[in-house]
Amino acid sequence: MVTLKEIAEKCSVSITTVSNILNGKSNVSDETKERVLKVIKATGYRPNYMARGLRAAKTNSVGIIIDDLTEFSSTGIIDGIMSYFDEHHYKAILENLRFYSKWGTKWYHNKGYEDSVQQAIDEFESIKVDGIIYVAGHARSISCIPKNLNIPLIISYAFTEEEGISTVEFDDEKAAFDLTNHLIDNGHKKIAVIAGTEQNIHTIRRLNGFKKAMQEKGLPVEEADIRYGKWDPQSGYENAKALLDNSDYTAVFCFNDLMAAGVYDYLYEKKLVPGKDISVAGYDNRTMSQFLKPSLTTVAIPLYDIGRKSAELILNQIDNPDNFEAQHCFVQCGIIERKSVGKI
Amino acid sequence: MVTLKEIAEKCSVSITTVSNILNGKSNVSDETKERVLKVIKATGYRPNYMARGLRAAKTNSVGIIIDDLTEFSSTGIIDGIMSYFDEHHYKAILENLRFYSKWGTKWYHNKGYEDSVQQAIDEFESIKVDGIIYVAGHARSISCIPKNLNIPLIISYAFTEEEGISTVEFDDEKAAFDLTNHLIDNGHKKIAVIAGTEQNIHTIRRLNGFKKAMQEKGLPVEEADIRYGKWDPQSGYENAKALLDNSDYTAVFCFNDLMAAGVYDYLYEKKLVPGKDISVAGYDNRTMSQFLKPSLTTVAIPLYDIGRKSAELILNQIDNPDNFEAQHCFVQCGIIERKSVGKI
Repeated sequence: MVTLKEIAEKCSVSITTVSNILNGKSNVSDETKERVLKVIKATGYRPNYMARGLRAAKTNSVGIIIDDLTEFSSTGIIDGIMSYFDEHHYKAILENLRFYSKWGTKWYHNKGYEDSVQQAIDEFESIKVDGIIYVAGHARSISCIPKNLNIPLIISYAFTEEEGISTVEFDDEKAAFDLTNHLIDNGHKKIAVIAGTEQNIHTIRRLNGFKKAMQEKGLPVEEADIRYGKWDPQSGYENAKALLDNSDYTAVFCFNDLMAAGVYDYLYEKKLVPGKDISVAGYDNRTMSQFLKPSLTTVAIPLYDIGRKSAELILNQIDNPDNFEAQHCFVQCGIIERKSVGKI
Repeated sequence: MVTLKEIAEKCSVSITTVSNILNGKSNVSDETKERVLKVIKATGYRPNYMARGLRAAKTNSVGIIIDDLTEFSSTGIIDGIMSYFDEHHYKAILENLRFYSKWGTKWYHNKGYEDSVQQAIDEFESIKVDGIIYVAGHARSISCIPKNLNIPLIISYAFTEEEGISTVEFDDEKAAFDLTNHLIDNGHKKIAVIAGTEQNIHTIRRLNGFKKAMQEKGLPVEEADIRYGKWDPQSGYENAKALLDNSDYTAVFCFNDLMAAGVYDYLYEKKLVPGKDISVAGYDNRTMSQFLKPSLTTVAIPLYDIGRKSAELILNQIDNPDNFEAQHCFVQCGIIERKSVGKI
């Protein structure tokens, strides 16, 4: 395989110049850059990221620790991270911890998981990645990041009480606020909520957003308006039954799309039409939400953008190790207006 | 961190014995194994897989090259691979090539992708993985595996004309054969097909299965019974219109669930009920298929099992480098009977 030195000689530039060009640094003239990239292409030179750890101070690689790749949010975030890395000549190496697959939905009650995170960090340190992004499977406070870490680490899709660690989340409260206002704007005043599990951070944030929107418009929220589900269609169905039988609610805000599908099932059974007889809104914009009949109005979580922002933050921190301040970013969601919310 | 040597001393066994236990080898007595594992647990020793490449002949790590992580099939296969590796103390390191995300659905017409595959293989060789699994995003003949490869490589979810490379696929033809028989068993004789794109391997295999089942039951298949779609709901809708207007078909077999959803849209428009007025079947068992109304009868692709089988084959090949024969496995699919196929 051709070496950097050979390319530098062919182009009559220094090895550093070739390296700078490959690493996307901007201190090289466009003319030189174009000339060198042409030679690089012609020689078939391919930089070898993973093995760089053996010889270089910087490897242009970032380790990604993933709670579980099979969570619906994971692949979108990772795709965003990798698209940003592609543009900046960085490489992602993935460690999938399989927490949900191995231990079910309650894995984070099992403190043993911290060992797996520590090991993943050790592994990445051993191959000298420049930084680490932790991609969580759901929002929570992550407290198992070692304090003496020698490389930058940021958290994506969750947060931490620890100082000095940047985090990227989506603005869960604001999206619930916006969706509630969308319902109110369509004339709904009596709105039932099927929330997620009670202590869950997503539930708490979405409830805050819902209550804030109702309060701002002077609409009362009673305790009985809110029921807690288990994020699955069955609990959506059961809570719809408990909430909607003999009630005067005109809309139901479900804190995820799967529970909204359960509400649809209840309405079909009662020969009621979602969006006409009762309006229904979801959250997540999962693929299935567009295939419900009528299609479901919901909140799109900006997974790809969360990934891009996480990548941007980690590369900034890698490039400016001494001039860095932890940031806590909240990427904005979008409301996807479909046919399940009617005007009254 | 505690070393293998310290563990060996504590247990009064050799370093090799500790190593054999960690690597899941069976040549150690149960009593010794239990005693050593207890000490390992107590000391908090964690083997470091990625860095092993620097010092050991065997790293107990396998590189996974993925066409694109965002394809619906990828995460299920990877989860299966990793569950098998967990049981056998192997580590997976993922390289996501992002072909669909970068270049759209026709990326494999762009021969430039072969460079990316070559680079991924180079990277994995450089960190001395014991083997590589290539997880394809759709079935095709993969011809870009270098012939002089020094480590075992197998292909998952696709195949190759190259000799000496094992492949794991699902039995696409058999599943289409079984689904067609399920329709015939429910009394359907006049069955329309909305196939995928015409040259696609999945299309070809599924058509073979369909024709074989029809032929075995003495049912004629006309050219007009088969239309080619683009795997999306829109083409399902359009082909349903072309096939079903003024026809005597009693069932439509769609070669994926997304096109079946398009057929549902057409039927709703015509005030026809899927499963009652016209039976509809899909393929893939995507999450959305259970949320269609009525829920869709479809073929479940055994992604997890394809992953497990791929993992089993690569570990066998790693353990028996001199006594190995390439295998071509076809994992069987299941028919998911729901409510979109009615008896007539």
